[in-house]
Amino acid sequence: MTEMAPLGRRVAVEFVGTSALVAVVVGSGIQATKLSQDVGVQLLANSLATVFGLGVLIALLGPVSGAHFNPVVTLAAWWTGHSGSEGPTLREIAAYLPAQIAGAIGGAVLADAMFAEPLVRWSTHARWASHLWLGEVVATAGLVLLIFGLARAGRAHFAPVAVASYIGAAYWFTSSTSFANPAVTIGRAFTDTFAGIAPGSVLPFVAAQLVGLVVGVALVAVLFGRPAAAAEDVVVPHGEYHPATADR
Amino acid sequence: MTEMAPLGRRVAVEFVGTSALVAVVVGSGIQATKLSQDVGVQLLANSLATVFGLGVLIALLGPVSGAHFNPVVTLAAWWTGHSGSEGPTLREIAAYLPAQIAGAIGGAVLADAMFAEPLVRWSTHARWASHLWLGEVVATAGLVLLIFGLARAGRAHFAPVAVASYIGAAYWFTSSTSFANPAVTIGRAFTDTFAGIAPGSVLPFVAAQLVGLVVGVALVAVLFGRPAAAAEDVVVPHGEYHPATADR
Amino acid sequence: MTEMAPLGRRVAVEFVGTSALVAVVVGSGIQATKLSQDVGVQLLANSLATVFGLGVLIALLGPVSGAHFNPVVTLAAWWTGHSGSEGPTLREIAAYLPAQIAGAIGGAVLADAMFAEPLVRWSTHARWASHLWLGEVVATAGLVLLIFGLARAGRAHFAPVAVASYIGAAYWFTSSTSFANPAVTIGRAFTDTFAGIAPGSVLPFVAAQLVGLVVGVALVAVLFGRPAAAAEDVVVPHGEYHPATADR
Amino acid sequence: MTEMAPLGRRVAVEFVGTSALVAVVVGSGIQATKLSQDVGVQLLANSLATVFGLGVLIALLGPVSGAHFNPVVTLAAWWTGHSGSEGPTLREIAAYLPAQIAGAIGGAVLADAMFAEPLVRWSTHARWASHLWLGEVVATAGLVLLIFGLARAGRAHFAPVAVASYIGAAYWFTSSTSFANPAVTIGRAFTDTFAGIAPGSVLPFVAAQLVGLVVGVALVAVLFGRPAAAAEDVVVPHGEYHPATADR
Repeated sequence: MTEMAPLGRRVAVEFVGTSALVAVVVGSGIQATKLSQDVGVQLLANSLATVFGLGVLIALLGPVSGAHFNPVVTLAAWWTGHSGSEGPTLREIAAYLPAQIAGAIGGAVLADAMFAEPLVRWSTHARWASHLWLGEVVATAGLVLLIFGLARAGRAHFAPVAVASYIGAAYWFTSSTSFANPAVTIGRAFTDTFAGIAPGSVLPFVAAQLVGLVVGVALVAVLFGRPAAAAEDVVVPHGEYHPATADR
Repeated sequence: MTEMAPLGRRVAVEFVGTSALVAVVVGSGIQATKLSQDVGVQLLANSLATVFGLGVLIALLGPVSGAHFNPVVTLAAWWTGHSGSEGPTLREIAAYLPAQIAGAIGGAVLADAMFAEPLVRWSTHARWASHLWLGEVVATAGLVLLIFGLARAGRAHFAPVAVASYIGAAYWFTSSTSFANPAVTIGRAFTDTFAGIAPGSVLPFVAAQLVGLVVGVALVAVLFGRPAAAAEDVVVPHGEYHPATADR
Repeated sequence: MTEMAPLGRRVAVEFVGTSALVAVVVGSGIQATKLSQDVGVQLLANSLATVFGLGVLIALLGPVSGAHFNPVVTLAAWWTGHSGSEGPTLREIAAYLPAQIAGAIGGAVLADAMFAEPLVRWSTHARWASHLWLGEVVATAGLVLLIFGLARAGRAHFAPVAVASYIGAAYWFTSSTSFANPAVTIGRAFTDTFAGIAPGSVLPFVAAQLVGLVVGVALVAVLFGRPAAAAEDVVVPHGEYHPATADR
Repeated sequence: MTEMAPLGRRVAVEFVGTSALVAVVVGSGIQATKLSQDVGVQLLANSLATVFGLGVLIALLGPVSGAHFNPVVTLAAWWTGHSGSEGPTLREIAAYLPAQIAGAIGGAVLADAMFAEPLVRWSTHARWASHLWLGEVVATAGLVLLIFGLARAGRAHFAPVAVASYIGAAYWFTSSTSFANPAVTIGRAFTDTFAGIAPGSVLPFVAAQLVGLVVGVALVAVLFGRPAAAAEDVVVPHGEYHPATADR
């Protein structure tokens, strides 16, 4: 029933998926600032478009690559899975991460192209403050807790709706508007629009996200206990292709 | 369990469904411009109404006609299915496309009537720029990738929510607000309101949508590989009537 | 597995459900007008609150009474079901309709009480124009087509989400903001707030809704053909209590 | 298949879940007031973020602790369940309630920290009026009716979406914006931001919520009748860990 999709195809999916995700985030941000003067309305549009887009991407591409689109998720899958044989291998990580970063940059460029913005212009939007970094820690920890907690509870099939909804909430309840993704953070440095982040602000954001990764993995252990020995325990579906099964 | 609905009834469903879709898009656009001065709020209302309406139409009418409501979808179903015996026949295409176009025009007229606007007045809203055409290529490619990728992954039952959510995102992340549908594009030329498009802008939009169709079919092949030989591979459910089965 | 709930309890459910529905519509309208000057934002809040509330009410109360909350739905169930033995009986109709109307009035009074408005004050909001009546015909026909079409297609379990989404779209794409319910229309005459309707405007609205009922039933017949002889054909679940089964 | 999670872990989940819930409510309120001047837009953002966040928390943490996050829910589970052996024991209540209250306070502090607000500052937002108390009675009664009615109807698996949607509606249709939760009410006294409540207003809000609890339990009995003797009757899943089963 399950059959491993070739790594090349999975990497292509991670590239396209992360690209599409950033195109949605950046593109909807540009559209929103063109249409409204109210920043609240702008972020409503930006966050709702991301909820819709991210949910669709996970539902569509999850069966092929696991729909990580995020180095934090790939690394957490390796971390929580490497005691057994379930997480990605180092070779897979070495293929996924560059695809995610390249995809994120490509997505920012595509969004700029669609809106007749300069294809690449470094963002001038400084996001540098300790409370923003705390926001990133919280946002990333929550994302990791959600993805791996759902898997631990046997509810991985909720992921498309749950992860999208989580990001929709995190746009608002974190001060940083929840980047929570190192690849996306890098990509968003390439566009000087609503969703951009100044290159100088990228590094601490990524560092905070890695701290959040550690906190999230710890929270999974505390709240969900030791994994049962069941087949459902696969942390994130990846590297497997379920042509006609899946979450029903 | 499956029983072909007569072509006449399927064509009536395509007519009514496309008509309702355009009535939702055009009508909610008129309502939004009457109630708010903030164009961001207007597009929020317009896009959310479309998400709700399109999801309902696919859930309701999909079991009868496949709920294409879009020549691009019908043509892609033919293209990806014609090597086997699964796609629509040329005779079916010749019946579906006119029904979709006539329905789209009817829907615009109905919306105008409900809001006491002139029943037919050519739109004066020029949408003519290369970045808008790129937006249409992206929007249509994504739509085709979504519909046929879901089918390839055995998740066609996600279509009502996924396609509606996709359009909700694409309203915002594409510069063109994602027409992505030649029939709807033609219909929207008949109303000089928020959602209208000047007749002179229609042709390049449709051309861009056809380019997007090609790109989308190519993406399906690259990202999902060759189809398995399973029964689930039917690309889009069409021409079959599942009175009491369906997506559960 | 199915066991008829007593008529008295079903009638209580129709009363409470219709009351809650009107309290949501009227209450969220009052809240919205208190908080925003932008009528577009007001209707966004009003329509989203209704989507959330109506979906919950159908999911919760559908298993007991069928969650009609609307004389049009009860009458359509009788009409489409009375050739067989599936629709409600005349005695059941005679119990449901007054409960719906009384519930609607009670809901308007409750909303007024929660917001410290006069408990009963006739609405001064005239809604009198032929294009509004056309809006009501369309809104009601669509509602009937949706509910009974889903049942015909074996997808009655989609009703909570689908009906709520439909109303969310219809708030925007119809000029009348889609009352589509004679009981709710009467109830909304009792409050002089955002969602109110002047008593003098009620009668033509109700008449238009009855025309929509006829159009909707005709559309079901045209688009879905003759019903199959299957058990799934029960038009609207009513009068049956499924304690632990239902739509999964 | 079901295996009791240790009480300590369940209590940790109640603490974290309630904390996250309040962080979402308070944090999104702060973000919204920073970005928009339109209070309607602010409450739209606040309510949508809560819908997304609450639904995710129930879906993720329900399998471990029952995802009460609310003393009213814990008490209602005890009340409706204590005739049999299904509700929580007094010892469990004595562990859950303090965890919920402490979590709520922690969540308010965390939100303040993320937005560089003073970690603790008593709210100056007086919410003192009889019509607000009526709002709390209605909001809490509806919440109890929903949770325990769904369980009675065998639809407890709808809870994540249904409860979240209910709160999304109740933000708008009740005058009090639906606190409906004594722990959250206490927590929100610790932050002088959009979602705060002056300490002096807390007591009558909590009293109204307890009245709502009684009304809600009575409504369940009236509308859903006596419980069947089925296993599905567990009122709220709690104290049980379903690693790979759950609501599918």
